[in-house]
Amino acid sequence: MKIKITVSYDGTDYCGWQIQPNGVSVQQKLQEAVLALTGENVCVTGSGRTDAGVHALGQVASFPTASSVPPERFAPALNTLLPRDVRVLSSEAAPEDFNARFCAKKKTYLYRMYSSATVLPLLDRYAAQVERPLDVAVMDAAARMFEGTHDFAAFMATGSAVETTVRTVYSARCTGGEEGTVCFRITGNGFLYNMVRIMAGTLVGVAEGKISSADVARALSGGPRTLAGKTMPPRGLTLLSVDYD
Amino acid sequence: MKIKITVSYDGTDYCGWQIQPNGVSVQQKLQEAVLALTGENVCVTGSGRTDAGVHALGQVASFPTASSVPPERFAPALNTLLPRDVRVLSSEAAPEDFNARFCAKKKTYLYRMYSSATVLPLLDRYAAQVERPLDVAVMDAAARMFEGTHDFAAFMATGSAVETTVRTVYSARCTGGEEGTVCFRITGNGFLYNMVRIMAGTLVGVAEGKISSADVARALSGGPRTLAGKTMPPRGLTLLSVDYD
Repeated sequence: MKIKITVSYDGTDYCGWQIQPNGVSVQQKLQEAVLALTGENVCVTGSGRTDAGVHALGQVASFPTASSVPPERFAPALNTLLPRDVRVLSSEAAPEDFNARFCAKKKTYLYRMYSSATVLPLLDRYAAQVERPLDVAVMDAAARMFEGTHDFAAFMATGSAVETTVRTVYSARCTGGEEGTVCFRITGNGFLYNMVRIMAGTLVGVAEGKISSADVARALSGGPRTLAGKTMPPRGLTLLSVDYD
Repeated sequence: MKIKITVSYDGTDYCGWQIQPNGVSVQQKLQEAVLALTGENVCVTGSGRTDAGVHALGQVASFPTASSVPPERFAPALNTLLPRDVRVLSSEAAPEDFNARFCAKKKTYLYRMYSSATVLPLLDRYAAQVERPLDVAVMDAAARMFEGTHDFAAFMATGSAVETTVRTVYSARCTGGEEGTVCFRITGNGFLYNMVRIMAGTLVGVAEGKISSADVARALSGGPRTLAGKTMPPRGLTLLSVDYD
């Protein structure tokens, strides 16, 4: 049987989703919990990796089991074995061929920023500080340019190896949030390495007048990495949800 | 000269505002930063203590100095010496007789809760989990009963020594917040030990049907501690602001 779980975590204290030789990963915590619960040493496959310090509201993962634990009981049982900053929100039976990574159709991310000359301790854990003022309308107009099918090579960390840098973005919007925050939400069929963090940095560059909309347009036509903005820090990024058929 | 500072901190990793023999306090971090900046070993007086794990958006503190650092430069200079989860938002010169504790006229606190069967890692740091559903309208009606001048003895941790348990609450309201949270905001001329956390527990008791509005009314007439609700955990409490004349 395959189990599909939805997982939320505060990524601050983790080296990311994926198991690493050094550092504690979310995947490791989940696999240890499954082992303690069922005695099975399985691979818990996530919809994708999240980097060190990146958070998740609704990461999806899957694993095989021969255990007699009812599928919906995995969530509360695993939660008794997990640290408080990692929680399984729900668990269910999935078809035998379900794989959280390969079956994912859409992902939605949130990148949250706040404009302040000073680090604001109560925002800082889940948002990135930007020292200059941010114009939400200008950023939203630039974010909407990301929508559609483009060659996003400029929005990928240099040195990443992928078959194609073409992706489809279904929605990309900026809105003003609580306490002067700016929220950049994006939904797409897949994301390149550091893509959302580079997009957020590009929007900040646009707000600061350092990047023009013509630059963004060129970047979206397979232009070089240098046309896009800097890579924003992981703390502002949250994987909100993963959609399947 | 007296310096008045406004301080924000994430209280999670501190033993509270006040210096303790064991544990790291916010006051200690500030005093160490002032010492490093001016060479002066001063007492930084807060508007009041916050308990271990309680946060502040706008705690106010004061300290004397003979330093030549311009008053408004203390904030950025201290921030280079402070941990990231403690930040001085502003600094200014205050009259020689200014004392952040004794001159405080009003304080405003926020107690944030979220209703969920599961701990939600991305809310958990600044809000308390309540497993049952919360009816905001019912809680707001009960919160409004706190408004006015009452004997709040029932809303004080047992064993506290104070001259009088009479306080005036100017405003007490519950509102629904982001992602299913409930926010209880209260402004008063002073607060007894654990008063806001016991009030929040009372509102939860009312929402759960365990405490009636008649119980709240009796509690507000100097009734015993047993009439009020349980003391909610510190993580949900934030000192929002302190007002002076």
